Amino acid sequence: MNYPVVVEVNLRPGIADPEGATIERALPALGFTGVSAVRAGKSFRLLIDAPDEAAALEHARALADRLLSNPVIEVATVRVSPS
Amino acid sequence: MNYPVVVEVNLRPGIADPEGATIERALPALGFTGVSAVRAGKSFRLLIDAPDEAAALEHARALADRLLSNPVIEVATVRVSPS
Repeated sequence: MNYPVVVEVNLRPGIADPEGATIERALPALGFTGVSAVRAGKSFRLLIDAPDEAAALEHARALADRLLSNPVIEVATVRVSPS
Repeated sequence: MNYPVVVEVNLRPGIADPEGATIERALPALGFTGVSAVRAGKSFRLLIDAPDEAAALEHARALADRLLSNPVIEVATVRVSPS
């Protein structure tokens, strides 16, 4: 069965995030106040053919750590998502 | 109160995604089989100061549509996430 998996890759806490900082600085000028701690990352949606959900997540985690993220500065989270 | 919100920005279905296609093509050579429909996107994590969760999500949706995504080719989803 094909499981829809979302992999989210974010910079580790403490790693400088110029993109997030730039967004945060731009927000008040556009009328958005009360927003803080903006961090920019990547997301990947994929279908994984696996016998069950646990196997799909394990496959996705290996893939995320080896191919989709740089574990030195980034952390990847995986989840099964219906949409 | 500060609500942690995740904004996920993905290309609309049908819009060409060269990054996702490249990842999908690279996977078998790295030993990952059974993966299809790879789509690359962006994710943003932010803290929104709002009186309740619904207000935080509404604020995030406006922000996502106006600043974080291009509604012509991208679709943004927002959710409150504890992590």
